[in-house]
Amino acid sequence: MMDGWRGVVTACVLFALGCVTAMPAIAADRDKLLNEPGVYGTFAAFRFDADWGKLDQATRIAHLTSFKGVVEQHREKLAIDTYLLRGLSDHADFLLRVHATELKDTQQFLVDLQNSPFGKHVTSVVVFNGLTKKANYVPGFSEQLKSDLKAPSESGPYAIVIPIRKDTEWWLLPQEKRAAMMQEHTEAALPYHKTVKRKLYHATGLDDFDFITYFETAKPEDFHSLVLALNKVKEARHNRRVGNPTLVGTVWSLDQLIEVLAQ
Amino acid sequence: MMDGWRGVVTACVLFALGCVTAMPAIAADRDKLLNEPGVYGTFAAFRFDADWGKLDQATRIAHLTSFKGVVEQHREKLAIDTYLLRGLSDHADFLLRVHATELKDTQQFLVDLQNSPFGKHVTSVVVFNGLTKKANYVPGFSEQLKSDLKAPSESGPYAIVIPIRKDTEWWLLPQEKRAAMMQEHTEAALPYHKTVKRKLYHATGLDDFDFITYFETAKPEDFHSLVLALNKVKEARHNRRVGNPTLVGTVWSLDQLIEVLAQ
Amino acid sequence: MMDGWRGVVTACVLFALGCVTAMPAIAADRDKLLNEPGVYGTFAAFRFDADWGKLDQATRIAHLTSFKGVVEQHREKLAIDTYLLRGLSDHADFLLRVHATELKDTQQFLVDLQNSPFGKHVTSVVVFNGLTKKANYVPGFSEQLKSDLKAPSESGPYAIVIPIRKDTEWWLLPQEKRAAMMQEHTEAALPYHKTVKRKLYHATGLDDFDFITYFETAKPEDFHSLVLALNKVKEARHNRRVGNPTLVGTVWSLDQLIEVLAQ
Amino acid sequence: MMDGWRGVVTACVLFALGCVTAMPAIAADRDKLLNEPGVYGTFAAFRFDADWGKLDQATRIAHLTSFKGVVEQHREKLAIDTYLLRGLSDHADFLLRVHATELKDTQQFLVDLQNSPFGKHVTSVVVFNGLTKKANYVPGFSEQLKSDLKAPSESGPYAIVIPIRKDTEWWLLPQEKRAAMMQEHTEAALPYHKTVKRKLYHATGLDDFDFITYFETAKPEDFHSLVLALNKVKEARHNRRVGNPTLVGTVWSLDQLIEVLAQ
Amino acid sequence: MMDGWRGVVTACVLFALGCVTAMPAIAADRDKLLNEPGVYGTFAAFRFDADWGKLDQATRIAHLTSFKGVVEQHREKLAIDTYLLRGLSDHADFLLRVHATELKDTQQFLVDLQNSPFGKHVTSVVVFNGLTKKANYVPGFSEQLKSDLKAPSESGPYAIVIPIRKDTEWWLLPQEKRAAMMQEHTEAALPYHKTVKRKLYHATGLDDFDFITYFETAKPEDFHSLVLALNKVKEARHNRRVGNPTLVGTVWSLDQLIEVLAQ
Repeated sequence: MMDGWRGVVTACVLFALGCVTAMPAIAADRDKLLNEPGVYGTFAAFRFDADWGKLDQATRIAHLTSFKGVVEQHREKLAIDTYLLRGLSDHADFLLRVHATELKDTQQFLVDLQNSPFGKHVTSVVVFNGLTKKANYVPGFSEQLKSDLKAPSESGPYAIVIPIRKDTEWWLLPQEKRAAMMQEHTEAALPYHKTVKRKLYHATGLDDFDFITYFETAKPEDFHSLVLALNKVKEARHNRRVGNPTLVGTVWSLDQLIEVLAQ
Repeated sequence: MMDGWRGVVTACVLFALGCVTAMPAIAADRDKLLNEPGVYGTFAAFRFDADWGKLDQATRIAHLTSFKGVVEQHREKLAIDTYLLRGLSDHADFLLRVHATELKDTQQFLVDLQNSPFGKHVTSVVVFNGLTKKANYVPGFSEQLKSDLKAPSESGPYAIVIPIRKDTEWWLLPQEKRAAMMQEHTEAALPYHKTVKRKLYHATGLDDFDFITYFETAKPEDFHSLVLALNKVKEARHNRRVGNPTLVGTVWSLDQLIEVLAQ
Repeated sequence: MMDGWRGVVTACVLFALGCVTAMPAIAADRDKLLNEPGVYGTFAAFRFDADWGKLDQATRIAHLTSFKGVVEQHREKLAIDTYLLRGLSDHADFLLRVHATELKDTQQFLVDLQNSPFGKHVTSVVVFNGLTKKANYVPGFSEQLKSDLKAPSESGPYAIVIPIRKDTEWWLLPQEKRAAMMQEHTEAALPYHKTVKRKLYHATGLDDFDFITYFETAKPEDFHSLVLALNKVKEARHNRRVGNPTLVGTVWSLDQLIEVLAQ
Repeated sequence: MMDGWRGVVTACVLFALGCVTAMPAIAADRDKLLNEPGVYGTFAAFRFDADWGKLDQATRIAHLTSFKGVVEQHREKLAIDTYLLRGLSDHADFLLRVHATELKDTQQFLVDLQNSPFGKHVTSVVVFNGLTKKANYVPGFSEQLKSDLKAPSESGPYAIVIPIRKDTEWWLLPQEKRAAMMQEHTEAALPYHKTVKRKLYHATGLDDFDFITYFETAKPEDFHSLVLALNKVKEARHNRRVGNPTLVGTVWSLDQLIEVLAQ
Repeated sequence: MMDGWRGVVTACVLFALGCVTAMPAIAADRDKLLNEPGVYGTFAAFRFDADWGKLDQATRIAHLTSFKGVVEQHREKLAIDTYLLRGLSDHADFLLRVHATELKDTQQFLVDLQNSPFGKHVTSVVVFNGLTKKANYVPGFSEQLKSDLKAPSESGPYAIVIPIRKDTEWWLLPQEKRAAMMQEHTEAALPYHKTVKRKLYHATGLDDFDFITYFETAKPEDFHSLVLALNKVKEARHNRRVGNPTLVGTVWSLDQLIEVLAQ
């Protein structure tokens, strides 16, 4: 019975979404945004208000359609990824990761989202802003390490975001000391390179952290082992704040996420 | 009078629940989930919203029936334990402990729960994620200690969950130093082995803690003495954060919990 | 005029309460619960919701009657004391101190309270759980000090609850060092023994604190001097967290408290 | 137009207040309460609920009249000062400073206030309790310093309340070391004695702080310079927590405050 | 379609605003307020309440018109700048920066704002108060550095506000040590002088911070590099708290901000 009901919801949602996806939209160069330096990455996590769950299905679907509409409208300039945090994180219900060449395009998207009928029912609870940069320390690494780092990593369905603030001493260390520690850090991470995908955002000044670290994996156990390994190198001594909050969730396409939220 | 009223509630609840339990469901291998390494354990604590207490009895029972329905539906893959925190903990009203081989099954369960009519009235306030692993240090313990640890422990009705974050120095210690300290820790705990049941979850990376420690006992006084004994060994120096929050409650079967919440 | 109105309220409240107190209830052995070791003490502080103040008088009195009913019903097993925090504490409006030989009886009481019509309008904001134990260090004190400690202390109307967490070093000190420091602590407190009543609860593991210290006095100035004196002994160095929250209020009988809350 | 509207409000408020002020009330000996040692000072800051701003003018004025009524009723025993925090402080909208010889009189006042129609719309967000005492260190100061301290200080309209918690080492210092540091502290403050009025409350045990420091000035810039000067003496090393929250506002008579809140 | 709708909103907003701007108002000497020492700067960030998003367009525009009216009315004495935080900051939706020669004029403005129909729907979440002062350390800098600092900086559209609390040791350092460190700090910032505009407010005593640092830039990447450079000088060791919260947003004229908020 429940499954039958779900089927109906799915049909409704897909129909409603069909109307939206009919809107033409030129997608941003996602590959470039996700792989090049000099790109801004914003992590915005939201919580539903108390009314959301009490709306009837039709209204909820209409609202989610407006959500999709806003995302489609901004795909031209932005790469937008969607995550479900509910159940694995107590901080928020869902997360958006937005890559943009201009932070103000990200802001315009998130403002449009909050101004949409959908946005009336969500509260912004976490915003992290970061910036992708050329790898600082890699140039000095051994050839072997550099080549190992080029192997591809497997992705999803799990995603974890951990913001980090370094202590003052870290920044006062000479560059070569930091480079040596980062080489040790990188070597410790290597065994997990294949099963855990990592992406680093530099955040100093753009929020209360120095780095936003993003992970994807199919094996949370490997991810756990990776973080444990990183805790065992000297560079970890210079982490003043790790997480608080740690965001844990799963990667969903926009359509999948909408289908879950419609229920 | 009050007791008569309670009797009626109980009858209603049991009738309503009967309808739900009629749904066939193949139970997960609970024994395996609770005793083997490589299993994910999630602790999700919830608080009722302000409307919950103001619903009439019939609606509340209908909602609790939907709660039971969602639990039954997921029993195939998950081992789900239910706890009442209200009265002994200020953080939340009830707690679910979920064991799963895949974290995403746990998430699907908790999402379905929050999407159910019952879920509209609860807010997620704490989520801890952990992983069971083979005992790290036990292999090096003396034969006597290893054998002592095999004796069974008594369980419930009290349950306490204490998350722990170690300091950086702990992880930088050589394995043999940590093993020696853990042997001292284990020996200090031994006198309470019979009356206090313990279960350890490794959490590094999966939330803001390194360990989620779970306890059951019929004698909170013994549990108190156990924690006091653990505070007096050198390993305790490396606890950077203990509790905050500490969750204290009692073990209830799902039906018992529903009966209490229906009142 | 206001006083006349108050008189009417008082009459209504007393009438309503009369109906409740007609219910027979065998009181717990209050003396034993308050004076023996091995008793659990729970401090539960509550805040009213926004609707409470907007209820009409009759409804409020009906709700308070349900409050009294729940207390009466549990007096058989529990010793329940009631305090007004409003005005002197920003954390909560009122406080219950519950003594029980079994923590689950306390939980049942507090659950029944929150399930009552009254309970729908209060939120649990602080719960401290502790345990009374035989004095740890007193056996080694001088005969003079032991005899001084036997003199009676004056009580109320002011009550203050201060939770304390010790640092790790405290627990790693040898017992005789701790005993010596506690003798110094006790001697510093002696001048205030007559005018400030103290009661100690051991909390390690049962919440986020190691001790819950409870005070009653008619002279807050003396209590202030006592805490100041305790700050000046070496044992104070081992307090990692003191208060946060400190609860300050006044002792009221249940009937008096209900009368105030009815207004 | 806006000014015309304001004039009407003012007239209404003054008329409504006139009715209240007709109630006879013997004022407490304000001078004694404000200048003698052994007096309790309570700082209670409140925030309006979301409904307050949405009430119509007439209802708001009726509520404010009840506020004034409660204050008048307690003036016999208490010295009550009123402050507007809104706009300069994010913690609360207004602040009451209450001086009493008995803390329970203060509590009764604040309970009556929260029980009044006005009180239904305010939430208590900060309560600090302190005690005035004879100056601890002044007796040992030089005659010149003692005489300088007797010069009068200018008051208002700005008021700032900063709570302070000292570290453990402070209380373990011998009295003469603390006296020497306090002399240095006092000398550093002297240049601002004329334009910044200070009043000290001892809070140890009565809330989470050791001191509540109260300032009034017409020149916030001088006050800023004073705090800066106090940061530069050795005694400042022993401040473990300063502010958090710092309350900043302006002094208003009750009638003025009511007029602003009526708008 | 969405764009057409936006056009209508814009027209309505501009019409409504036109009525307001017709009110004569003598603007404060903005240049003086923004460039001279001895001026108070207040940063007040607000969050919309849950109802705001659910108001119909016409009501929202009427409310925003009252917002504009209040701003216009106070422009005579104040320099008021408006920022959109939503999307880039999780703390608040919009920010006002107010410069005044008297703090009470700022308070009057913010009180009028919260008393306006618009103000009923916003909550004050952050208030920082600071004071502009003559540069402390610049007089001792080299002529070259002094001259470099006179070059103009580019402004907006990005604005970042970071409050800072120094540690106790900073204030206990002799003036010449602090001056030397500040010279190093200033030199480290120099490469970003052109693309990142900075303004410093002294806050000690006026809130929980010592400095409120304000930045404007068109290049967030340069701003990030600037903060990183400032982290690498010895003076950074004396920052006890940086940010928490960090406010990140964009500069909008009042009319532009109102147009966005109307949607």
